[in-house]
Amino acid sequence: MKVFYKAVLPKGFKASAAACGLKKSGKLDLALFYSIIPAQASAMFTSNKMAAAPVKVCREHLKNTRFFQAIIANSGNANCFTGLAGMKACRRSVEVLAKELVVEKKSILVGSTGVIGKPLDFMKIEKAIPALVKNLSSKGISLAEKAIMTTDKFPKTVTVKFRLGLQDITVCGVAKGAGMIAPHMATMFAFIFTDAAIARPAMKEALKEAVENSFNRVTVDGCMSTNDTVILLANGCAENKLIQNKSDKLKFAQAINTVCRELAKMMVKDGEGASKFIEIKVERAATVAEAKKAGLAIANSNLFKTAIYGENPNFGRIVAAVGACGIKVKEENLKIDLGDLKKKNILVRVSLGRGKAGCIVYTSDLTPEYIKINAAYN
Amino acid sequence: MKVFYKAVLPKGFKASAAACGLKKSGKLDLALFYSIIPAQASAMFTSNKMAAAPVKVCREHLKNTRFFQAIIANSGNANCFTGLAGMKACRRSVEVLAKELVVEKKSILVGSTGVIGKPLDFMKIEKAIPALVKNLSSKGISLAEKAIMTTDKFPKTVTVKFRLGLQDITVCGVAKGAGMIAPHMATMFAFIFTDAAIARPAMKEALKEAVENSFNRVTVDGCMSTNDTVILLANGCAENKLIQNKSDKLKFAQAINTVCRELAKMMVKDGEGASKFIEIKVERAATVAEAKKAGLAIANSNLFKTAIYGENPNFGRIVAAVGACGIKVKEENLKIDLGDLKKKNILVRVSLGRGKAGCIVYTSDLTPEYIKINAAYN
Repeated sequence: MKVFYKAVLPKGFKASAAACGLKKSGKLDLALFYSIIPAQASAMFTSNKMAAAPVKVCREHLKNTRFFQAIIANSGNANCFTGLAGMKACRRSVEVLAKELVVEKKSILVGSTGVIGKPLDFMKIEKAIPALVKNLSSKGISLAEKAIMTTDKFPKTVTVKFRLGLQDITVCGVAKGAGMIAPHMATMFAFIFTDAAIARPAMKEALKEAVENSFNRVTVDGCMSTNDTVILLANGCAENKLIQNKSDKLKFAQAINTVCRELAKMMVKDGEGASKFIEIKVERAATVAEAKKAGLAIANSNLFKTAIYGENPNFGRIVAAVGACGIKVKEENLKIDLGDLKKKNILVRVSLGRGKAGCIVYTSDLTPEYIKINAAYN
Repeated sequence: MKVFYKAVLPKGFKASAAACGLKKSGKLDLALFYSIIPAQASAMFTSNKMAAAPVKVCREHLKNTRFFQAIIANSGNANCFTGLAGMKACRRSVEVLAKELVVEKKSILVGSTGVIGKPLDFMKIEKAIPALVKNLSSKGISLAEKAIMTTDKFPKTVTVKFRLGLQDITVCGVAKGAGMIAPHMATMFAFIFTDAAIARPAMKEALKEAVENSFNRVTVDGCMSTNDTVILLANGCAENKLIQNKSDKLKFAQAINTVCRELAKMMVKDGEGASKFIEIKVERAATVAEAKKAGLAIANSNLFKTAIYGENPNFGRIVAAVGACGIKVKEENLKIDLGDLKKKNILVRVSLGRGKAGCIVYTSDLTPEYIKINAAYN
């Protein structure tokens, strides 16, 4: 398995981007991802009760069909808490795109990210669609990866290549962060494309596990978004023998896992205002769930995050966070190793002294810059 | 009922303070509160599994006796995560104080607040005890209220006076905040003294309700402390007819409620780095518990708190917080009124459109000053 920190679209995928005017800055704000033949999809969305219109539309389409050809995603507006008008705007974009691509409406998935509660001017999207379709190319990914960014400082892309029988398989993921990042999932997109031929159940299983091990273990500010979307499309263009035996499934799962984990780590590194990348390794927990609970409790403690920013070895804040999270850990068994706080990448090790399970959680520090960004962002 | 925003000790209570050297600044850091006759006590403590030594000692004493004469409380060191040495230090302070006051050890309650995980130099406390006892007076409260402060910018004191039959009853509360403030309860002390004669069950009930309506509804940073302590002492010196009928119990409960609520609001006003006092009024919830859940979810959202600091009317962050908190609220029923963000005191109203219950939660904004304080504090 080879890992590249750039986006290389697998066979049969194309992408394009446009600046349609949703971002006042005039930057790229609309991305199209397209598979030349219908692809299978697995997807996971926010569990927020205030799910945005595009999340609702995706859920509908996923219920109604098994084959997908495109994802259209905009930044600059979340199209969330926008009521019926928001749903109409989302459906209208789908309709116009379906006509332009000559595909079924239900074969299109949608993502929106940006400010919540602001009406979406879909005319801007509609006008941009013809050029978006015309510009589709395999190299368009280098623009599309930028068009989904909001407060992100850099695009997040990973490509994994591995061999399956006689065929080369590519898995390529592009994602965005960078605030409202908390498990289940975050204000994030991760669109993952592969040319592998794979049965849907195996695809679903691989994605679920990968998301649990990646996006559900990162937190920037503990705030769960309304628009979180992870979509995996597999179009089979690699012409491999259908992935269904154990060893092939494992190889595929490892590739998806790697893509998701690397994207999740990039989100944390680019967390709003982040000056440190923190890896919290919880060890000797009774169960993985318990380790994750403790890890996230520490990662979401403002006092802990601020201490790390200040390179202040105040381990008492970890003690307080672990003690408050509902695990029956005993004072005499809790061991904390804060590592070297002067570094940019910090490893914090916490041993609960309860069992043999463990888990790694990733987070960033809390800085004046986070406040500056979010005091103004609207 | 009359409310005074200063501490006036009820009949039979005395206090004193000392600078024993636990605070490097040389400021007051040790307080003694004393009842000339044994008083009944009700108390509530943190639910943090890493409870500090003084919390453990208090729990023991409350199990072993029904009458109390003193509370000794230090700031500058939490005596938490200090193992057996911490327990020994705490017991030793109790022992020396008991001898000096000529009272039983178990009639003494203890509180500590400050940095977690730092050994407590009990010799400093021991040496200060003789003067502390010698200086006890009803006016000593004006020093004692300062000696329990950590990052607090002002002392938190309320006195309520009300009439019961022919007698004047006084309830006086002193408290400290100001970071690690989250429900159940906070890094806080609230010591409440009354000269009322009251049966223990009625006292317990009044305190429980008051704490639920006050300290359990404030949050500064969502971090739960290891040392939270609320103690109510009642010595009966007012010589009223024992409070046991419904109307008397109600009057007493109102007084305790008022003291706790006002102290809780002061904690939020003095929240670390706070520039705004935020009242979140959740209405039309199905139950009070649900209203509280939504209120605390909003109050603990870093994005919401930062928006308020920036006077940025980004109500989408309330939408996201409510949607993520586990209540089945519908988009079309959620109503949000952000009020005037330019003011120092802000009222945010959120209607869930689910029923008739409501709840008020208090919080402060998240500011660069919070980070400055906590990046350095140790």
